[in-house]
Amino acid sequence: MCVKLNDGLEQNFIFINLHKLVLPSLAVRVDKHYGAKKLKERVLGIVVPLEEQKANKASINTLVNLVKSDMENVNALILSKAGSHVELIPEIARHLISSGGKRLRPMLTIAAAQMCGYHGDGHVKLAASVEFMHTATLLHDDVVDESDMRRGKLAARMLWGNQASVLVGDYLLGQAFKMMVEVGSLKALDILSTASTVIAEGEVLQLAAAKNMNTTEDEYLAVIRAKTAALFSAAAEVGPVIAGSCDEDQKAFHSYGTNLGLAFQMIDDALDYGGNANDLGKDVGDDFREGKVTLPVILAYRRGNDEERAFWKRTLEEGAIKEGDFEKAITLMKSYEAISDTLDRARHYGAIARDALAPFPDSLHKKALLEAIDFCIARAH
Amino acid sequence: MCVKLNDGLEQNFIFINLHKLVLPSLAVRVDKHYGAKKLKERVLGIVVPLEEQKANKASINTLVNLVKSDMENVNALILSKAGSHVELIPEIARHLISSGGKRLRPMLTIAAAQMCGYHGDGHVKLAASVEFMHTATLLHDDVVDESDMRRGKLAARMLWGNQASVLVGDYLLGQAFKMMVEVGSLKALDILSTASTVIAEGEVLQLAAAKNMNTTEDEYLAVIRAKTAALFSAAAEVGPVIAGSCDEDQKAFHSYGTNLGLAFQMIDDALDYGGNANDLGKDVGDDFREGKVTLPVILAYRRGNDEERAFWKRTLEEGAIKEGDFEKAITLMKSYEAISDTLDRARHYGAIARDALAPFPDSLHKKALLEAIDFCIARAH
Repeated sequence: MCVKLNDGLEQNFIFINLHKLVLPSLAVRVDKHYGAKKLKERVLGIVVPLEEQKANKASINTLVNLVKSDMENVNALILSKAGSHVELIPEIARHLISSGGKRLRPMLTIAAAQMCGYHGDGHVKLAASVEFMHTATLLHDDVVDESDMRRGKLAARMLWGNQASVLVGDYLLGQAFKMMVEVGSLKALDILSTASTVIAEGEVLQLAAAKNMNTTEDEYLAVIRAKTAALFSAAAEVGPVIAGSCDEDQKAFHSYGTNLGLAFQMIDDALDYGGNANDLGKDVGDDFREGKVTLPVILAYRRGNDEERAFWKRTLEEGAIKEGDFEKAITLMKSYEAISDTLDRARHYGAIARDALAPFPDSLHKKALLEAIDFCIARAH
Repeated sequence: MCVKLNDGLEQNFIFINLHKLVLPSLAVRVDKHYGAKKLKERVLGIVVPLEEQKANKASINTLVNLVKSDMENVNALILSKAGSHVELIPEIARHLISSGGKRLRPMLTIAAAQMCGYHGDGHVKLAASVEFMHTATLLHDDVVDESDMRRGKLAARMLWGNQASVLVGDYLLGQAFKMMVEVGSLKALDILSTASTVIAEGEVLQLAAAKNMNTTEDEYLAVIRAKTAALFSAAAEVGPVIAGSCDEDQKAFHSYGTNLGLAFQMIDDALDYGGNANDLGKDVGDDFREGKVTLPVILAYRRGNDEERAFWKRTLEEGAIKEGDFEKAITLMKSYEAISDTLDRARHYGAIARDALAPFPDSLHKKALLEAIDFCIARAH
């Protein structure tokens, strides 16, 4: 059936009578997503969005098509600004740039600027800056995490060494700032430079939390809010900023970006234990091997018994990983619903991101940005 | 005797009759420094500045005293902006900040702004930004060079690991940009963000030149122009920029900073082979052990015979360093005057820096900035 939600968007749902539901937790979950108050009559049945069953149908195509023309300019700018007379720089930069991330962050900048009626080319430069900031972070992250792979390809540090990864990261960060300066919006500069310090803080925080099973969910949230959500947030917010939108609109995009980023990272962390490596282009189990204490781990550890906690301490804190440990980790997570609850938490932030854009009138851009939330979450199904 | 040079500054000289000079090269050298054309009559004797003999008398005190009050604000700002709720960040930042660099770069910003009549507090923020950019570079350099020591103390990476050094460097760079944005001068932002990309390019270039004895003096110059002179130049140039000085004055400070930076780095590179480790707070021989192809090496290699070139290739390219090799390196350099000629090259750039400020009327600030050149060069005596 097709239901019109109160934000005016049509969505496909399947209708299930309440008595057919075996698990009461599902009723609670649905309530959490759409709010019981939205149902006008007392519930005889509940509405379960198809996303729950067929989330892999969510697509980012609307967004991709909307920003296509501007993104071509972004990509051309990225290639040109990754150039340098110093040979090694374009070589490494192009390795990363061609390794096919989805460019979600710069797409947010373009879509947000377009949605707020921006005319000019500043959003293209800011979008390229955002992608460079992201690429620089990836280069430095690989060095910090001692990663071998990145998006299914050998990490740059494996090909050119840690040294070049650090320095080319610095170069791209410098180029990012230069492009922002060209745009000339001090507010956008403030937002993006603040994001760059917050990201670095988040990475340091993550370093401190690594291999520490006492990390709480709150501490985890603080890490991903800084290391991931800050850039999503800045990417989205600079759109209305250069469009000269009112403070309220800027704040709405800030909130949209932040919460989309939180959801995105949680899904990423869940994928590392249950996703399909081919989809992510990233080896499953990287976080496990690197001793990263992510949400699925935190939930499984806290819900586990003494023997299980000893397992997590041995593998993640001490790094004493044996054959079969990763499989055991996934089994433990499943038995405590640690992965599915991580996805639930992600949906919660997705819902906040959705509501952040609720005040805006319906438009293709709004639809695309809302679909991007579903797409991020659907990756884990 | 006291001679008034044509830039109006009084300087102490000793007068030597030409016939007393044994080495004709010294006459050339003097000519190179002060220009024979400046002597109104045909030379019967030449003027040799005391710097040649007693260069260790050169002092940076005039500069230090002039900028003292503003530098107290810079230092307070540095300490406050190195703070973070993420514990590790202020810990590492303070380790570096307290390790007692001379803060030459931020002093240039303060002195240049003051000399150009700037009123406000923007120069304090820009000076702190410059020092943060420098500190971030040091942190990343230590990781890239795998250095154990920095200014006579254990390098941050030895205490907290490469990971933290990379990330705290990123954090400080972010804070630097935030402070620049607060000042609000797009021109200053452009200059400093351009410097940050050029510095990274220089470091990558240096990486490519490392362990490569075919590096030419020109390539060496390109490296130090980027990795060192670019920040000196930006530090000096943003002073007149925020003071609203004319283009010509901005260019003068740009040239002063660039050439001072070149001289500074050449002296640093000479010190690594002949300086006093206590003075520099840096172990002599670091560059040799790291296979860095600096100017003293380039000169000694190019002037050497086949056997000597084989020595340089074995030690610097292959890193096969035996007991006594460092001493042999210094002996070879001395026999080819590689170190003294490196100092000569440094003096050449020092002279250009001096002339860059020649158009400005005499002032205590001008005197202090000129003395800073002598001070940088005198370190190697």
